[in-house]
Amino acid sequence: MTKIHELDTPIVLVDLDRVEANLKRAQDYANAHGVKLRPHIKTHKLPQFAKRQMELGAIGITCQKIGEAEVMADAGITDIFLPYNILGAPKLKRLLALARRASIKVIADSVTTIDGYSKTFAASGVILPVLVECDTGGGRVGVQTPEQALALAKHIAGSEGLRFAGLMTYPAKGMAAQANAWLERATALLKDAGLPPETVSTGGTPDLWRSGENRAATEYRPGTYIYLDRFQVQEGVGSFEDCALTVLATVVSRPTDNRAVLDTGSKSLTSDTLGLQGFGRIVEYPDAVIASLSEEHGVVDLTNSKAKPEVSEMVRIIPNHVCPVTNLFDEVTFVRGDEVVGTAAVAARGKVA
Amino acid sequence: MTKIHELDTPIVLVDLDRVEANLKRAQDYANAHGVKLRPHIKTHKLPQFAKRQMELGAIGITCQKIGEAEVMADAGITDIFLPYNILGAPKLKRLLALARRASIKVIADSVTTIDGYSKTFAASGVILPVLVECDTGGGRVGVQTPEQALALAKHIAGSEGLRFAGLMTYPAKGMAAQANAWLERATALLKDAGLPPETVSTGGTPDLWRSGENRAATEYRPGTYIYLDRFQVQEGVGSFEDCALTVLATVVSRPTDNRAVLDTGSKSLTSDTLGLQGFGRIVEYPDAVIASLSEEHGVVDLTNSKAKPEVSEMVRIIPNHVCPVTNLFDEVTFVRGDEVVGTAAVAARGKVA
Repeated sequence: MTKIHELDTPIVLVDLDRVEANLKRAQDYANAHGVKLRPHIKTHKLPQFAKRQMELGAIGITCQKIGEAEVMADAGITDIFLPYNILGAPKLKRLLALARRASIKVIADSVTTIDGYSKTFAASGVILPVLVECDTGGGRVGVQTPEQALALAKHIAGSEGLRFAGLMTYPAKGMAAQANAWLERATALLKDAGLPPETVSTGGTPDLWRSGENRAATEYRPGTYIYLDRFQVQEGVGSFEDCALTVLATVVSRPTDNRAVLDTGSKSLTSDTLGLQGFGRIVEYPDAVIASLSEEHGVVDLTNSKAKPEVSEMVRIIPNHVCPVTNLFDEVTFVRGDEVVGTAAVAARGKVA
Repeated sequence: MTKIHELDTPIVLVDLDRVEANLKRAQDYANAHGVKLRPHIKTHKLPQFAKRQMELGAIGITCQKIGEAEVMADAGITDIFLPYNILGAPKLKRLLALARRASIKVIADSVTTIDGYSKTFAASGVILPVLVECDTGGGRVGVQTPEQALALAKHIAGSEGLRFAGLMTYPAKGMAAQANAWLERATALLKDAGLPPETVSTGGTPDLWRSGENRAATEYRPGTYIYLDRFQVQEGVGSFEDCALTVLATVVSRPTDNRAVLDTGSKSLTSDTLGLQGFGRIVEYPDAVIASLSEEHGVVDLTNSKAKPEVSEMVRIIPNHVCPVTNLFDEVTFVRGDEVVGTAAVAARGKVA
């Protein structure tokens, strides 16, 4: 059996026991609190994990881009939510092809998006379910008020080839309660107008363990919970021992007493800090700080680390933000503890469109 | 002929006329100032551009990882500098295989790295040229003093299978003069010891137009000059009209009067700021600020932009830092002005090891 320290670096290691524990813990919580999970696959981008999430009880999956949804449909997953404004002839054509072979729901936050869907689906014989995306405080995409949500819901309901299917939001961190109140107001307006939302979808791993409190929601879309990362640990979602994905790195240089350089730069770890100090946690040297990254080098400050690694030593890094790391590697290596048990191509990697 | 606005987004556009002009301008400068160019291919990761750089007069290329060098050797490029400490049995085996089919030079900044090379090459019949990497102020990899450079040079010269081949540095921005002084001191020490450096390699696009002033250097390794980017324009290396790579994006949402959202997030533009405000320059709306990115969304602040884009409109973005953008896309699309003239797979993308 190959051990991880026989591998070439940098490489992404995914601990299958931790994955399974993380998925089960979330599904158990969901079952206990009456929450329906629709996991976001952007974190792992692997059909086999999407299938496992479904086997454990997820009602479907979430993808962000059509390219991701195509990969998952190819793997036999047939209930896919695509919470993205899909615009332009090339994408609308792909969306229709996808909707002919899987159950696809999308979102819109503008008349322009809705009219594009309607023009595409009107004569197709396929009805496209469309939810209205709501900006409940996150400041990204979405209608600004429940009244605007109602107006778009009516526009969807009146558009050929479409069906109004509910509301969707990505709540800002710590704004789950505010999002819930927003969605309750919108739901009341919609009911009064004879358009009760069949789905009200919210999400986010940071608030996963409070998802049972979202009275307005009918489903929850966590993504990062499968692997966790340094940010999620800071948010209290789990511990470092729950983190299932690490990047195996080699110390390539020790130019000074308090500096080490790793072969993992922004091309392996990304430049995402998510507000954290440093660019990841070195499992074996938790007091060391990955102080700066260039593309292929990670410069580590050892000032506060009594133990100092040697040149050629391997270390494991828990990334700040695990989702974009997955997108940088063509392949992940599965491990159980120190043993390598397999590999998988990251099938939905690089699906930008 | 396909026009760029018929394409699906996000997509990377590379303007071939601008590429050619950027390459020629640098080579003309190099010829006029007696500078030998050894371009770093990390920016484009495309064999065809590496070959064009050689045709125009480059003496060889630079790669950062063995995987990149393998791709370039496969394409027939036979003079490759790999300025990286190469450690560990899997990589050393690949290095030897590569050195059997191309002229490969590497660096070292420690005895550990040198001894790994020697053990690998001693009985191979191949002599590996090794340069000493010098930290001339950049604070990354490299020996700290000219005296340490001399000590390692002696160790290389005394190691079976190796040849001491010179000095290499990646100078910090604005520290070219300091780096030059460092390298002059080290060169004098080496000459006194009977080990004159045959190559003294420095680089960096920000200081490209001052590379003729590096009296200590024998070659220069610019990378980003082929495409340029928002950071290089700020550094005065060229103008926005010289930037050859743009990301074509679609406005997917206009939730408020002063907010637009693009379909380009950190998965297309990376989170690199390089100290700049915002995450790229929108060519058509230069006063707009790409204020924040999530993976698939770019949130644009239009407060200072009189003109406001509409939903479904396409825009072109000049990234802050173009090299990691290249690494996010499987393919680039070649254009001349608004016309699409071809595509190429980014052959050396994702070569992390």
